[in-house]
Formats: sequence, structure tokens, C-alpha cells
Amino acid sequence: MDLNADLGEGFGHWALGDDRSLLDVVTSANVACGYHAGDADTMRSVCALAAEAGVAVGAHVGYRDLAGFGRRFIDVAPDTLTNDVLAQLAVLAGFARVAGTRVSYVKPHGALYNALVRHEAQADAVVDAVRMFDPTLAVLGPPGAVWLKRASVAGLRVWHEAFADRAYTSAGTLVPRGEPGAVLRDPAEIAARCVQMATEGWVRSVSGRPVRVVADSICVHGDTPDAVGIARAVRGALESAGVVVGRVESPLRHARQAG
Amino acid sequence: MDLNADLGEGFGHWALGDDRSLLDVVTSANVACGYHAGDADTMRSVCALAAEAGVAVGAHVGYRDLAGFGRRFIDVAPDTLTNDVLAQLAVLAGFARVAGTRVSYVKPHGALYNALVRHEAQADAVVDAVRMFDPTLAVLGPPGAVWLKRASVAGLRVWHEAFADRAYTSAGTLVPRGEPGAVLRDPAEIAARCVQMATEGWVRSVSGRPVRVVADSICVHGDTPDAVGIARAVRGALESAGVVVGRVESPLRHARQAG
Amino acid sequence: MDLNADLGEGFGHWALGDDRSLLDVVTSANVACGYHAGDADTMRSVCALAAEAGVAVGAHVGYRDLAGFGRRFIDVAPDTLTNDVLAQLAVLAGFARVAGTRVSYVKPHGALYNALVRHEAQADAVVDAVRMFDPTLAVLGPPGAVWLKRASVAGLRVWHEAFADRAYTSAGTLVPRGEPGAVLRDPAEIAARCVQMATEGWVRSVSGRPVRVVADSICVHGDTPDAVGIARAVRGALESAGVVVGRVESPLRHARQAG
Amino acid sequence: MDLNADLGEGFGHWALGDDRSLLDVVTSANVACGYHAGDADTMRSVCALAAEAGVAVGAHVGYRDLAGFGRRFIDVAPDTLTNDVLAQLAVLAGFARVAGTRVSYVKPHGALYNALVRHEAQADAVVDAVRMFDPTLAVLGPPGAVWLKRASVAGLRVWHEAFADRAYTSAGTLVPRGEPGAVLRDPAEIAARCVQMATEGWVRSVSGRPVRVVADSICVHGDTPDAVGIARAVRGALESAGVVVGRVESPLRHARQAG
Repeated sequence: MDLNADLGEGFGHWALGDDRSLLDVVTSANVACGYHAGDADTMRSVCALAAEAGVAVGAHVGYRDLAGFGRRFIDVAPDTLTNDVLAQLAVLAGFARVAGTRVSYVKPHGALYNALVRHEAQADAVVDAVRMFDPTLAVLGPPGAVWLKRASVAGLRVWHEAFADRAYTSAGTLVPRGEPGAVLRDPAEIAARCVQMATEGWVRSVSGRPVRVVADSICVHGDTPDAVGIARAVRGALESAGVVVGRVESPLRHARQAG
Repeated sequence: MDLNADLGEGFGHWALGDDRSLLDVVTSANVACGYHAGDADTMRSVCALAAEAGVAVGAHVGYRDLAGFGRRFIDVAPDTLTNDVLAQLAVLAGFARVAGTRVSYVKPHGALYNALVRHEAQADAVVDAVRMFDPTLAVLGPPGAVWLKRASVAGLRVWHEAFADRAYTSAGTLVPRGEPGAVLRDPAEIAARCVQMATEGWVRSVSGRPVRVVADSICVHGDTPDAVGIARAVRGALESAGVVVGRVESPLRHARQAG
Repeated sequence: MDLNADLGEGFGHWALGDDRSLLDVVTSANVACGYHAGDADTMRSVCALAAEAGVAVGAHVGYRDLAGFGRRFIDVAPDTLTNDVLAQLAVLAGFARVAGTRVSYVKPHGALYNALVRHEAQADAVVDAVRMFDPTLAVLGPPGAVWLKRASVAGLRVWHEAFADRAYTSAGTLVPRGEPGAVLRDPAEIAARCVQMATEGWVRSVSGRPVRVVADSICVHGDTPDAVGIARAVRGALESAGVVVGRVESPLRHARQAG
Repeated sequence: MDLNADLGEGFGHWALGDDRSLLDVVTSANVACGYHAGDADTMRSVCALAAEAGVAVGAHVGYRDLAGFGRRFIDVAPDTLTNDVLAQLAVLAGFARVAGTRVSYVKPHGALYNALVRHEAQADAVVDAVRMFDPTLAVLGPPGAVWLKRASVAGLRVWHEAFADRAYTSAGTLVPRGEPGAVLRDPAEIAARCVQMATEGWVRSVSGRPVRVVADSICVHGDTPDAVGIARAVRGALESAGVVVGRVESPLRHARQAG
């Protein structure tokens, strides 16, 4: 099981999250590429830290919206979105290479993450960018997202992720932020749920009913007050349960897709 | 003799210059990398056009200052400048690769161009970035600039440029913009001066005295009203004089440095 | 009849449109406030020119999106939109005051203009900003827009505008850009239609059927190649037809609303 | 004695400092105006909090450089600087007015603060902006700064400030950051020095010699780890020593200038 977290989300004088501590826990770092957060100094240093820690570098691509932290849907033209994603992949790949590592996967950020679940034109635009830039890159997102289907058709490797600290509906989707109980806070409970997802492939939904959640990677958040504590609890519990925590090698859902 | 011009200097809805026409005339395109001008759409399309036209792509790197078009000195810390230049090289290299070409040289823009003539810390910062990103890149600038000396010491290939439409002092430096006669307007005069520089290695200075100007590349400006007309006049005159107009292969100043 | 046009839409080194010439023709200037275009230098100079020409200054407010020129819908939170509009009103009001004039109306730009036709939360957000900043400001937009209804309820003065160079459907809405015939090019035809709107209150729709178009102001575009020529043709034709061209004093639709 | 601190220095998703707590301690808030930090949401909320706390609002104006937090000198043209400062004054004044308060003074930020000590053209540019926008605004800066001299000549009210946590040279200037001992950390020592400055008009310099420091306002920093603790210690000590802590009413140096 892979553990991923968002890193490099500072900008200029502004810091966000505890990148160094998270890099001791996670196996994949979603690194901001300057569009929603991140600048040249940040990308340089996070890539260096990730390389040193042996953590995989992913391009955390988003809308061009520093003021909104990429959390607002922007109805950008598909051609422009393709180019915007190309720009983000290229700049992060440059810093990764200088740090002696490489970008190995792509994960959309914020409002783009949400839009790509359904927005076909933007989904195609992002898949086009990844395919053009480097078709060996994996793409990381939620099961069922339209962009992952398009990515799979385009021949890209698809990784699915689950969320450590988010409640699920009985349909297997996330309970929207803002609804009561959407975000879990108790490290022990979060860790136990992650073990269950990793070993049994299901989790209890808000309705109480179990729901199937099969993932290659679990996302732990980096910007909550106890982010590092939760991430450590999740990793500790997984390892205690005999789950090997490491970068994605052979994604589960290839088997599922074949089945 | 190489002919270079600044291209891709639009931003979003704003256009600047006639990139298509210039690409029929020049042999090297200094492409803005998003810091002083240029965005993802622009870089994508200019790289594609340059590839199609067989024009060399250079990274036109500048300060992070869209509002000032990179024309204002910024006292940026050297480490940050290194990373800012790395970011610009990386993003343009990505678009060049997607277009089937590559970045082959680096030319600083605007206030950075001027600063690097003397500013040692910023000069070292830019040289570090080029060396780290790709030591096979050539660097293009004015003879005597401190950054070219540092680049040469660092083992980078150094190309010198002269300016088609600028007056020279008897010391061989440019007459500052704003002084009378600093910018030449007459295409025939400009073309004749370029031929003289290319074939005889000198030009008449504002004082009337001839001054030695030896260059691998001549810069023609792209944003003046008759930019394309002047560029065509220069190329036509050079070719009529038997000067081969093409990308820099074996820079002149290597010989000079050896001599 | 008032004539309005978008002005001050440059940014930094980039110019757009011929502000000086348009100011000789129009009676109201929609001045960009730095969010989709415009910067401090531009606002300063356009306000000075408008004051000198006796042209009314309007705040052309948009989404915070220089890269997209405000032409992309952004799903910004209403509270933030209120504050973003307040910021734009405040900065332009400052420059207008320094120039010896004042902001007298507000017109949304681009994607915000379109969104406010139906988007209730964003409509309320903009109305809140105007009301808070200065309830004596008029608001300018297309008849039927939800934001104008909310503005009217909030006690703001509402001005309706028609478009000189755009085709109308038989329902009285604009033919979307991109559809054939959406944008008219012939100055004489455009001018004749404006006269008909101003004197008879209707215009021929794309279906051939006349459609009622009653407006306090006619928008002439500033960024098309022959913008100034078209604007002059419109003003000339209106004056020849006996229509008084001047700033809005007593909006038509107050009568209509009372009727 | 006035106490001032920098507030509203977040941007978008990024927070900085503990504005609420500082507003309980200081009497003047230097509020970022969107150029080096701050956005519409931040300005709105800080102005509201300051109004509620009865704290004076000052415009903390800086270079247009979010990526550099305004801490890098920019060689901006004086005319543009005037307009950039006008824009910052106007936008903050708008938010202050909406909050039921007003901007009462101007303090330059970061690299602009330092530049204005000696840079005559930029000093004149900022004075011009203040004078044009509102000649009743006071200007706040270090004794001896060229821009304060120009401001005084222009008829503006001038306030001098001292720094609570910075060491002074025997010439009365600040020990540059980066030099050993430049920044003091001990709240008790800092508070004692402030009392000495407020009651006796001198402080011990790094050389051990006393140096005259007479100020209308003491600046406490907001972004250091123990910023609020230090600010409270300073205020407590001043009040214990019988110094009235409050907004500047009749600046000391008018007397000094007259003397």
C-alpha cells in the first residue's frame, strides 16, 4: 500500500504543512507545481528532500489560481488546460531531475480533482497533457473518475486512491466537506479504517453499511493540525497489520479490470 | 551569422509582435518562459512554429515580473534566481520537446540582461542554473558581460551578440535607450551596419569613430512597428553580401579567446 | 442614448484598444480595475483622459484572472466575490478621484457578466459589494439579468444596455459568439440597427423577426480591428437621427418598471 | 506612545501571524494592501477587526511582488511607483470605510521601507502618492529617512518609529538582519528597552554606548514565534512605567523640528 500526501504547498514567504516530517512517513509526495501553490524555491527543495527520503514525486497539477489555492472550478478551455498541465509537468520534472529523481505520477489538485470526476472535456485535456509529456507517468485519482477511464483508454497506468480521514457514503463516494462527520479526526479510528481498506477492501460508510473501497494508495492530508500524527498512526497500523507500505508497483485495479 | 529575435512575448489575451513573420526571417527565437511574458499556450504554439520553421529555440529568461515585463531590476537572492531560471528552462524545454525540438541556448531578458553584465552574484546564479539544467546549452549575451565570463569558466558554450538597430559608443557598449540616436530606424542603414559587422567586424560609433563589434548572432527587435521589415532587410543584405545566415555552429569567440 | 465601451484593458507592457480615440466617441467608459486587466498606470491615465473628455467612468469589474482576461467562469465563493468587487470599486474610485472625476456606475466584465445573468449567489455578492461601497452607483447590464433584478430590489439604479455589433435571437438574447453571424462587421449596418433600437425600440433578430430591444446605453466594442470606426459610425448615425447622445440621466426602464 | 505591528499579511489560503491577538495589544495596524501580501478577504476582515478593537489602520504599502513578499528592491519607475502606492491606498481606504473606520497613516513595507531611506526618486514618488490621495494622512518611518524629509516639506504629518526587538548601532541605525545580535529575543529585555526609549529617549547600542532614539511609535513584529508575547510584554512594561499607550496625536518630532 502506498501512502500519499500533498507537499510543497507554500508560496514565497508563506509556508504550509510540515513537509520534512511527512516525508518520513509517506511513500509518495504530491508536489505543487506553481499553479495553485509552490514556487521555484519550494519545488527545488521538496524534490531534493523527496529524493533523499526515497519518496516518489508526483505532479500535483491544478488550475492557475494562486489566490484561490486551486480550490475554485475554472471553466478553462480544454486546449489551455492541456498546456497548463504540460507546463506544470515540465517544471516539476525539471526540478525532480536536478534533484536526482523523477516525476512518476500525476494527481490533480483541489477543484481540478473534483472537476475531472465528471467533466469530460477537461478530463480529456489532462489525459492529453500526460500522454504527450510522458506516457509512462501513472495517474492517481478516485475510482470511477471519468478522467481515469480516459487515461486507461489512452494506455496510461491508473492508480486508485482512498482517503484516510474522510467519511464515505454507502455509494462509495466521499461525504462532502461541510457535512457533519465528513472529516475524521481520531488518529486511532483513521488508522483502523485504513487497515481495513488495505487488508479487506472495505470500510464502514456513514450509513453504517460497509462499502467496498479498494485502493493502490491512501491519501493522508498534510495541512490539518495533527497531519503528521495521523500519518504516522496510519503507517504504524498498516505495518503492524502486515501491510507492506511502499510505492505502487503493480496497481490492484489492473487485476480488477481484468476480472 | 545567426539572427535572433524575441518571440512569444504575449500573455493571455495580450499579443505582442508578429511571431509568424519573424520566424520566416530569424534563425534563433528567444522565447519568453512565463516570468516576464509568455504563458503555456504561447510557449506551446511558438515552439511548434519554431520547430516547423527550423528555427532554434532559446530560453529567454527574466525576473518574475509580469507587471513590469521583466524590465525592472529586482534584487532577488541568488539562490532564488537560480531556481527561477531553472523553472524557466524546464518549462520551455518541456514545450520544445513536445513540439519535436529542443532548447539550445539561453538569453537573459530585459533588466536581467543588463544586470548580468556586472552583477556577479546574479551572474553566478544564472550560470549555476544553466549548468545544472543542461551544460550543453549555449549562453547568448553581449561581449564582456561578467556572466559570459563565468559561463565560459563553467565550461558552457558562449555566443556573443550585436544589436542591429542600436547605436554603439566608441567603447563598444550600447548607447542607452533614451539618449538621442540610441535606436536606429532606417532599414537600409541598419542592414548596412549589420553587413559591416558580419564581414568586417566593426561598426561606426556615435562619435563617428569605428568600433570593433564581433558577434556570432545579431539581435533584431520584434516589437518595433517595422520589426519584420527591418529583420527582412538585414537578412537580405547579409545574404547579398555572401554571409551565410544560419544557427551558430562554431562561435567566433572561441577562436578569439584562443588568440 | 449613452454609448459605452471597454477601456483601460492593457496590462503592464501590453496595450489593447485605442483608448484615446474611443474617448472622443463614447459617453461612458468601462474601465478595467486590475482583476482581468488594467494596472495602476493604466487606471490612472484612463481616468485622467476620461475626466478630460467628460466621459463617465464605470468600474468594469471581473474575476481575478489576468491569465484568462476574466473570460473564464470561476466558481468563487460569494463572500470572496463581494470583497473582490469591493477592492475593484475602491481602487478605481481612488484613481477617478485623483483625476477629478468619480466612478458613476458598475458593469461586470466577461465571464462574470455572463454568470450574473443567472447565478443567484454571485449576483447577490456583486449587488452587496455595490450597495456597501456606494449605493448611488448605477449598475449596467443586459435586460433580464438576475443581478439587475436583485440590484433593483436593493435600491440601486439599473441601466440596461444593448450591443451595437451583436446579433440578437428572436427571444431578445445575444447570439452566442462562435455561432455564424453572431458578430456584425459592417459599420453602416451596425449604425442603422443602433438608430432603430434608439428610436423605435426594436431590432431585426437572426430569424428575421423583429425583437424588442430597449436600452439606456449601447455598448460598442473597443478591441475589434475597426472598433473606433464603428463607434464613430454609430454615434454619427444616432446624432443624424436626432438622438441625443449623452450620459444616462433618467433610465428608460424606470418608466417601464412603473408601467 | 503608539505601538504598531504588521497585520493582514496572509494571502489566499496562506495565513501569517496572529492578527486577532495582536489587535488586543497594538494601537496601530500596518495593513498589507495586496501588493506584497493581503487580498480582498484579508483586508476586509482585518479592517473590521481593527475598527472593532479601536486600532488605527495604516496602509502598509510595498512593491508589487507577492512572490518575494515585498522584500526585494525593485527598480520601478517613479511614476509607476506613485500609481502603485495610490492603488494600495485606495483599496485599503475602501475596505476601511466599509468597516466604519479610515486609513490614518502610511508605512512602507520591506524593501520599499529600506529603499526610501535614501532613494530620492522613489521617496518623492511615494510622497506624491500620499499627498495626492489624502494630505491628511500621516507617514510613519525611521528618523532620518529621506522620504520623511520630503514628506515634511510636502506638508505631511511625519511620525517616527523605533523597533522593539532590533539592536541599534551607535549611529542610531538598525544593525542589519543577519549580523549577530541584530534581533533581540528576550521579552523582558525588549520591554525594558522600549520603556527606556519611551521615557528617556535613548537605548544602549551594540557597542554598549547609549544612542538617542526618539519615537512616536514602537514597532513590534508580528511574524516571529513569540510575537504576541513580546508585544504584550512591551505594552505591559510601558503602562507600568506610566507611559500612556495610544494612537499618535501630537508627534514628538514636530517639537524637535521646531527646536
